[in-house]
Amino acid sequence: MEKLSIKEIYSATYVLKHIIRPTNLISAPLMRPGCDIYIKPENLQVTGSFKVRGSSYMISQLSDEEKARGVIACSAGNHAQGVALAAKACGIRSIICLPAGAPISKVEATRSYGAEICLVPGVYDDAYQKALELVEENNMPFVHPFDNLQVIAGQGTIGLEILNDLPNADAIIVPVGGGGLISGVAFAAKQINPNIKVYGVQAAGAPSMVDSISSGKIIRLDKVSTLADGIAVKQPGEHTFELCNNYVDEIVTVTEDEICAAILYLLERHKLVAEGAGAVSVAAAMFSQLPLEGKKTVCVVSGGNVDVTIFNRIINRGLQKGGRLCTLSLEISDRPGQLVQVSKLIADLGANVTGVLHERTNTFIDVNSCVLRITMETRDQEHIDKIIQAIKKHHFHIL
Amino acid sequence: MEKLSIKEIYSATYVLKHIIRPTNLISAPLMRPGCDIYIKPENLQVTGSFKVRGSSYMISQLSDEEKARGVIACSAGNHAQGVALAAKACGIRSIICLPAGAPISKVEATRSYGAEICLVPGVYDDAYQKALELVEENNMPFVHPFDNLQVIAGQGTIGLEILNDLPNADAIIVPVGGGGLISGVAFAAKQINPNIKVYGVQAAGAPSMVDSISSGKIIRLDKVSTLADGIAVKQPGEHTFELCNNYVDEIVTVTEDEICAAILYLLERHKLVAEGAGAVSVAAAMFSQLPLEGKKTVCVVSGGNVDVTIFNRIINRGLQKGGRLCTLSLEISDRPGQLVQVSKLIADLGANVTGVLHERTNTFIDVNSCVLRITMETRDQEHIDKIIQAIKKHHFHIL
Repeated sequence: MEKLSIKEIYSATYVLKHIIRPTNLISAPLMRPGCDIYIKPENLQVTGSFKVRGSSYMISQLSDEEKARGVIACSAGNHAQGVALAAKACGIRSIICLPAGAPISKVEATRSYGAEICLVPGVYDDAYQKALELVEENNMPFVHPFDNLQVIAGQGTIGLEILNDLPNADAIIVPVGGGGLISGVAFAAKQINPNIKVYGVQAAGAPSMVDSISSGKIIRLDKVSTLADGIAVKQPGEHTFELCNNYVDEIVTVTEDEICAAILYLLERHKLVAEGAGAVSVAAAMFSQLPLEGKKTVCVVSGGNVDVTIFNRIINRGLQKGGRLCTLSLEISDRPGQLVQVSKLIADLGANVTGVLHERTNTFIDVNSCVLRITMETRDQEHIDKIIQAIKKHHFHIL
Repeated sequence: MEKLSIKEIYSATYVLKHIIRPTNLISAPLMRPGCDIYIKPENLQVTGSFKVRGSSYMISQLSDEEKARGVIACSAGNHAQGVALAAKACGIRSIICLPAGAPISKVEATRSYGAEICLVPGVYDDAYQKALELVEENNMPFVHPFDNLQVIAGQGTIGLEILNDLPNADAIIVPVGGGGLISGVAFAAKQINPNIKVYGVQAAGAPSMVDSISSGKIIRLDKVSTLADGIAVKQPGEHTFELCNNYVDEIVTVTEDEICAAILYLLERHKLVAEGAGAVSVAAAMFSQLPLEGKKTVCVVSGGNVDVTIFNRIINRGLQKGGRLCTLSLEISDRPGQLVQVSKLIADLGANVTGVLHERTNTFIDVNSCVLRITMETRDQEHIDKIIQAIKKHHFHIL
């Protein structure tokens, strides 16, 4: 098996210099009390994610004959845009296979970087099969999203940049899907400072690398389910499994609510838009048991390509998780004055009502009652608890 | 009257060096076709806006006796956080007067920087009066949000940074509220390159500087109304009026919908959160008649402190403005099958329904009819027009 080398990662930084944007560390002193945390904002990278690094470096290493034929890739997300831009920057052709149901915005973004789009009926696996067929037919190089040493070397440039900006960093937290990003970062960082800790984070609904490492062999999950679609990968790669086994100190998982809260934190405190996959590192810093106290820790925020139409829902989930938005359903008698009484209780406690649904045709409750669903802005969980107590004290039944 | 000098602005850059963050220009080639546009992301500045610059520089120039007494300011927004952090960085006391109704998040952010908070019943003008009383009582220096030459010099450092990063810039577009930011930027930029154009932007609902310049004298507006609360200023300052008159080439206005579209553009394309006031420069680049074709233009995005609870609404407005979200109200007969028919028309044309409200108790329509309010995701205005045509063709009445 080929081996990764730190020299290759250093040389990748020179290849990438004219393609990528500098993404300087941002200090985040309030992310977790007692810790000195920084953000590496790869969501501000061209194409909105780190993916352009790996594909650009891999493409740069192709022979002239291979470049003349162009490259093929398969992705429903960030990798598609990364390959498209990398190929354009190198002046070569690219064909990207996407599942037909991919969001219009992502398809258009990929097309805008000059790629030829091949929409394949079905899901990601169908698009992947189609890409392999095209590779076979046209003898064009395939740009793997993670399990390729040159792709991994390209992603590893992030590790070098972090230690260049913050030479005395104690730990780096990295999102993990297929494992390409963390493999490159962990390898690079540990060559420079063997004592640095590198932690990985997966979504609890897609723990393929966590399960593989704990089983000692590559595991394929039957299904994955998380809003962090960029790391919803069923099976790690062979290179990435080996590199994670050797260089990563620990991989933790975070819940969907924790991811939403991290996205909201980045939005409010740092004016940064992160996608679910990009924010899992911050979610781990905020909510996990990782030993970060007193340590200089860098969270890699790997991307920001989130569909705005679901962004609202994520913000609401984040507000709920933080006790700042609360929806209560009450059973009230169907007679005048009840709504007034509940509204007054809530107003007196300083919560701001943002939505009311009053429904009489609910068949699960008493025929003389109706359901009142109230959404309100609150300060924190303690505030919500006070409101619930007050409502119960007045003999309203909370459903 | 005292005068601003470029030397003072240069010296401000040195004072600010250890307080502010570098905000490097971000290339935005797709913001307006045929133009070479860059973003100066002051939303990523500490405290989430440029305001920390002016107040830090002004405070640094106080005498030791003045510093020992501490400073007073009045603000419901970014200026409060800027002064609080500036005072903390200088190791002095600050008292910030805020109207009692100010958003909890902004009050807490200001307090977290170490300021003493004075919540004043009433609106901004009441808080301002209270601040002046405190200044009188305690003989403490007042940090004006814009009409002070040292504050203006501090904001002017943005002009120097822009020309340092992009020496051949042809134009700079700057949000205008009281005029402190644009006064500093225009003065600094024109001292270095007298040929550079500096354009201002106000919200159409708060055109105090536009009206003042066109009247040749300072005008006070009776009321201002815009989601861009950071530039909702009733009256320009004396210094800022004079500096804008002498150094600003043109000031345009943008509508609320244009501001929402600009916020959405920054969110989707650049992963940046901008507040309304921060995004008006981008709105002007996208929608105004300013002559930017073939020019290197820098849009100053001045801040990102937007309340997340209204962010959803802004995103929705931005989507509507771009033809990507559409709500139609139809009058349909109150009999089975009508909803199916409308739903099918919409589905056949490829729009994705996200909300339906079916209401029978609307008193404005025929007693045998009801109102169907459908919200759907669409591709663009052309797509919406096709859907409307199809609905009309089937004899549904659009309200």
